[in-house]
Amino acid sequence: MKKQMNYTFDRIRIVMLNTSEAGNIGAAARAMKNMSLTKLYLVNPKHFPSATATARASGADDVLANAIICENLSQALIGVQLVIGASARQRSQQWRQLDVVDSCVEIKKTLTSKTQQVAVVFGTENRGLTNAELDLCQILMTIPGNADYFSLNVAAAVQVFAYQNFILNQQTTFSKKIRQLAGNDEMEGFYAHLLQVLTHLDYFKKNLEKTLLMRRLRRFFMRAAPEKEELAIFRGILHKIKPYQKP
Amino acid sequence: MKKQMNYTFDRIRIVMLNTSEAGNIGAAARAMKNMSLTKLYLVNPKHFPSATATARASGADDVLANAIICENLSQALIGVQLVIGASARQRSQQWRQLDVVDSCVEIKKTLTSKTQQVAVVFGTENRGLTNAELDLCQILMTIPGNADYFSLNVAAAVQVFAYQNFILNQQTTFSKKIRQLAGNDEMEGFYAHLLQVLTHLDYFKKNLEKTLLMRRLRRFFMRAAPEKEELAIFRGILHKIKPYQKP
Repeated sequence: MKKQMNYTFDRIRIVMLNTSEAGNIGAAARAMKNMSLTKLYLVNPKHFPSATATARASGADDVLANAIICENLSQALIGVQLVIGASARQRSQQWRQLDVVDSCVEIKKTLTSKTQQVAVVFGTENRGLTNAELDLCQILMTIPGNADYFSLNVAAAVQVFAYQNFILNQQTTFSKKIRQLAGNDEMEGFYAHLLQVLTHLDYFKKNLEKTLLMRRLRRFFMRAAPEKEELAIFRGILHKIKPYQKP
Repeated sequence: MKKQMNYTFDRIRIVMLNTSEAGNIGAAARAMKNMSLTKLYLVNPKHFPSATATARASGADDVLANAIICENLSQALIGVQLVIGASARQRSQQWRQLDVVDSCVEIKKTLTSKTQQVAVVFGTENRGLTNAELDLCQILMTIPGNADYFSLNVAAAVQVFAYQNFILNQQTTFSKKIRQLAGNDEMEGFYAHLLQVLTHLDYFKKNLEKTLLMRRLRRFFMRAAPEKEELAIFRGILHKIKPYQKP
């Protein structure tokens, strides 16, 4: 087996949202470590730490011990340039949808720049990711499967992703020019500024319109994946319209 | 999603040997059904049927109900042309070894003939397949993974195989709503409007800067390939800043 590129795997974090079954956290940790992933972020886990989780983790208890507990999804995404939300089902066209293979290709491209990080977000057991959670994701990763029965266990979903990501990184490396992407927190600052400016311009007629238009705009910018320099240009334009006051 | 080729999936059986944890049988059944596999053969399961297995199977209890219980591996292989043994670790060179992708390619070739069947055999939790069991296999399928920690749960191994087999047999076609992209002339009109607004805002300090920034902005929007509706949103924002006068 080839020497592993751990510097790459270390920059991929798995984020599990509101996990209700502690066993799934342990099974996910085991799935991760088998495929060289170690960074686990838990947003509001129902039971953690938990003896059940540790038992199911088998030898991957170090992944659990180093897991970072967060209060909300935004906190788990600090420092990340690419956010991918995992979903069993396809959604309306607002989100850029890729299957697991293509999502892993996007991750690989993003990680070509050694300072960049990626988060792959898995929703809660019962209902997956909410639209509000998906709003924070650039890509919706759909896991292919049986159209008549698709009810993948969350740890099984982590396993599928981790395997696909592992085998894709064993292969050839990309020789693309490195794009310095804007970080997730920078993008959030931009969206806040944009909202402020559009409100200042009296752009929104109704509150509902505000939500929908902001979502469309987020979708657009996420699809475009702006570089740091590009974001600076847009911020400069917004500043010319109205100076930014931190909310 | 495309119609699935169940005639193929129905000719692949998953064989689990001497499984000691009933939960793993249930989880394997769920992993299988999610990826359109339904034929489960259990050789000497320690506990079966089992409430734990049924609980972990979630909606895949039909796979459990139809599982065939065998006394030994040979019995589970009757009628099969290709036998693949799954193994976490590589073995001595007696066996033909392939990774999961190449094993699935072999399966696909074998199933081209509509009368042929395939078995993929998973060993017991503690020790995997014995050499005597591997003697009954034509191919040893090694699952790639972390060289420093490889301890895949048996249901996770079934999940990895089932996923790889699924995507190799089924290219998911996204039921993509066709994106109505803005036309070239609409984009040019937008760039002209944008230039007008930015000039109005005193955004450009020098002429050189104007050329370079407009080029960056064009490149950004070209990469994003805006839909008609998205472009309308941007035009609306520009109109709020300054009405467009055709040049």
